Amino acid sequence: MQQLKHHREEPTYLKLANLLEGMITSRSLRPGDRVPSVRQFSSQQRVSIPTALQAYTVMETRGLIEARPKSGFFVRARLYELVPAPKSAAVIRKTSCFVETDPLVSLLADHAGSKLVPLGAALPSADLLPGEKLARTMAAIARKLGPESTDYDVAPGSEILRREIARRSLEWGGALKPDDLIVTVGATEALSLALRATCKPGDYVVVESPTYFGLARMVHDLGLKALPVPVDSINGIDLEILKKTLSKHHVSACVLIPNFHNPVGFVMPDERKKEVVAMFSKRGIPVIEDDIYGDLQHQDLRPRCLKAFDPDGSVILCSSYSKTLAPGYRVGYMAAGRWHDKALELKRSTTFSGSLLPTLAVAEFLKNGGYDRYLRSARQAYRQQVSRMKEAIVESFPKGISLSRPLGGFLLWCEMPRKVDSIELFKHARAAGISIAPGPLFSPNGGFRNFIRINCGYPWNAQMERSVGILGHLVRRLL
Amino acid sequence: MQQLKHHREEPTYLKLANLLEGMITSRSLRPGDRVPSVRQFSSQQRVSIPTALQAYTVMETRGLIEARPKSGFFVRARLYELVPAPKSAAVIRKTSCFVETDPLVSLLADHAGSKLVPLGAALPSADLLPGEKLARTMAAIARKLGPESTDYDVAPGSEILRREIARRSLEWGGALKPDDLIVTVGATEALSLALRATCKPGDYVVVESPTYFGLARMVHDLGLKALPVPVDSINGIDLEILKKTLSKHHVSACVLIPNFHNPVGFVMPDERKKEVVAMFSKRGIPVIEDDIYGDLQHQDLRPRCLKAFDPDGSVILCSSYSKTLAPGYRVGYMAAGRWHDKALELKRSTTFSGSLLPTLAVAEFLKNGGYDRYLRSARQAYRQQVSRMKEAIVESFPKGISLSRPLGGFLLWCEMPRKVDSIELFKHARAAGISIAPGPLFSPNGGFRNFIRINCGYPWNAQMERSVGILGHLVRRLL
Repeated sequence: MQQLKHHREEPTYLKLANLLEGMITSRSLRPGDRVPSVRQFSSQQRVSIPTALQAYTVMETRGLIEARPKSGFFVRARLYELVPAPKSAAVIRKTSCFVETDPLVSLLADHAGSKLVPLGAALPSADLLPGEKLARTMAAIARKLGPESTDYDVAPGSEILRREIARRSLEWGGALKPDDLIVTVGATEALSLALRATCKPGDYVVVESPTYFGLARMVHDLGLKALPVPVDSINGIDLEILKKTLSKHHVSACVLIPNFHNPVGFVMPDERKKEVVAMFSKRGIPVIEDDIYGDLQHQDLRPRCLKAFDPDGSVILCSSYSKTLAPGYRVGYMAAGRWHDKALELKRSTTFSGSLLPTLAVAEFLKNGGYDRYLRSARQAYRQQVSRMKEAIVESFPKGISLSRPLGGFLLWCEMPRKVDSIELFKHARAAGISIAPGPLFSPNGGFRNFIRINCGYPWNAQMERSVGILGHLVRRLL
Repeated sequence: MQQLKHHREEPTYLKLANLLEGMITSRSLRPGDRVPSVRQFSSQQRVSIPTALQAYTVMETRGLIEARPKSGFFVRARLYELVPAPKSAAVIRKTSCFVETDPLVSLLADHAGSKLVPLGAALPSADLLPGEKLARTMAAIARKLGPESTDYDVAPGSEILRREIARRSLEWGGALKPDDLIVTVGATEALSLALRATCKPGDYVVVESPTYFGLARMVHDLGLKALPVPVDSINGIDLEILKKTLSKHHVSACVLIPNFHNPVGFVMPDERKKEVVAMFSKRGIPVIEDDIYGDLQHQDLRPRCLKAFDPDGSVILCSSYSKTLAPGYRVGYMAAGRWHDKALELKRSTTFSGSLLPTLAVAEFLKNGGYDRYLRSARQAYRQQVSRMKEAIVESFPKGISLSRPLGGFLLWCEMPRKVDSIELFKHARAAGISIAPGPLFSPNGGFRNFIRINCGYPWNAQMERSVGILGHLVRRLL
């Protein structure tokens, strides 16, 4: 379990639930083991019975224990605990522009066509998002503004939103000021501006391997050369290979997804975050940080950003509310450190301004506490959905697979036996009405051929259950 | 008067009004002349008295005639008719990256700071825009969509909007299909994508001189080299110099604002549009067309787009609803011809998608006829506002100025005596609480030092009247 520094006291029942979970994770309690009764537990722990009951409820919600009629509580069998995490990818040091895979492939993985079971694109279900609340908030703001609701939200963008984002930076160890921030059209524009502000065409950019496929495309489209450095599924980027890469090439920037990495799901440990930032800062190279899943931890506290360890404005933080509140509102932001002025100029000549009313609706939702209330339920939902998906995959897929252990977000990274070609699997799955994201999309050079990424952003249902069954069948056929 | 081909029959009273206007423009009828009585005119023209009266009402609305009690109708004295249009700028053939003028200058010209009298940025008054209707439309759409109101509007963007834009292309002589279009974040993103799809850093781009200053900045920010070609205030770009430029340099693209040019206001005649498009098509060079003011003709029919004369997908049409409906909704579009696929790919890796609800609100407004109703009043308002501003300038400014004769939109381009430095004027005006846009902003090489652009997007009022008086005083002081 990732150790995170706690900023504030947790309620007792949560501490107890975490204590129990720790025992299960460390295998002191194993699947099928009986756990103490609520009454026993309350007296063992010197807490009231309601508090003990609360802790057990949390454990049930997390899918870790189950009540059996007339027998008490038992540790749930979680088959996926027995499945290993994917190993680091083979060391890739080849300099490479991102080669385009079949455009149809990336297209479909992107869109999650409405008739496909949506295991492809990294998307939360609209039913889990507070869309109707946000829309009402937006309508109220429009009424209040009157004619001014048509005004430009001139860059750097709404000060109300920037103030809220700055205030929330305390949660990840930051201390941003509103003036440090630029509102962008999603994290996509933030990343694109960050790369343009720091690199010129032909320059080298270090990226993780695997990495977010939109980033792969963006690096290619900006005429930059990607230097992929492998990540492992626990600690993130390989520091030794990173160092070698930096000594061998004149690198202009590095893009990392340190928290709930897409597709691998790791959180880079704080010590490593500190070390990586120092390494780049010393060399005067900017680190572009994509924190789009950062608010979606499954438990404990929000992980820190690389920006929290930034001594001198070397880190460009990029994020958005597309994975948490409303993909289609296109409200993102960046804190560009030493590149702020340049990024602001580029923002003005790229899209000039964001959409005023969606921006103000998100700002109001952050301000009035709606976002925090929403996050509490979203985190729990994604945690459960990921857990259910892992179980279903382990039950349906053939032996020999590995599964990532995401600590937040709603993505799973699955390694299959070498013989399985994920592009073939993608095609067969699509014909069967199921969307998945094949591994080579996440690679600059066609690697990860036997990997797939699975979206767990949708509530579990019977169709999902069947689809995983079909996927397992298709994988077996490709063996 | 610009001759435009008519697509459909005009009502008789409009034909008669145009006939009268033609007589005034050609100075057959001069300021102070008495025009026939309504009864006389009806019998001269063989039309009913109500029709003749309608024609006179249009003429009054256009500010061309006035009724004097008990005396009948007279041609209004329009002092600005006596003022010449600005000449072509001195021939500029120097290859040049756009040099940045004082950032403060461009910043303030952009923003029209809320406390300044807004004669700087090219902005319609929010009071003239249908902001409240649009916001209500958006709220209704959000209710109807429910949770789906948070969805991505994945590029190429809303088919409903693309269908409406395609349908309306008939008005400017086009026949677009929804699939020809990509929805963008304002015209800014459309222009930026068009330049990126057709050029690589270091390439030469032909631009008009003067041209929209956002374009100047964009060309610079994309690492492109601008080749400015002068325009005259009636016909647009100088074809001789254009030809010489094309034979001398390897040009990758050309950006033109053929309709209600910013800042000069001309409409390029149809014959010249045809000729220019053919010239580029023959050479395989794309023409990027900025048509953002195209719907805002002061009278007659909507001018044609360059795209109407496009034989082979050589024209990339870029536009938006930022000058007509809602700057802050950020709803623009492009029809990228042969560069469609490339532009679509770049759109995905630049902002991924536009904002769904504002996009659907604009689409609905186009569909239900709200846009057409709104345009009828907006065109009249801008026509009157430009006219009032011209009068006020001619009365307040010293002799020796020239004024553009915009046929649409809400911008005036004013040439002052050589001695007047518009950057100085800008600073003094700002100190007096008035925003204006100084000429060098519109130039790649610091030209147009004695020019200013005046925004007429706001309804006329006493403060505006006073401000023009103050500006005139400041100009005299600089002589």
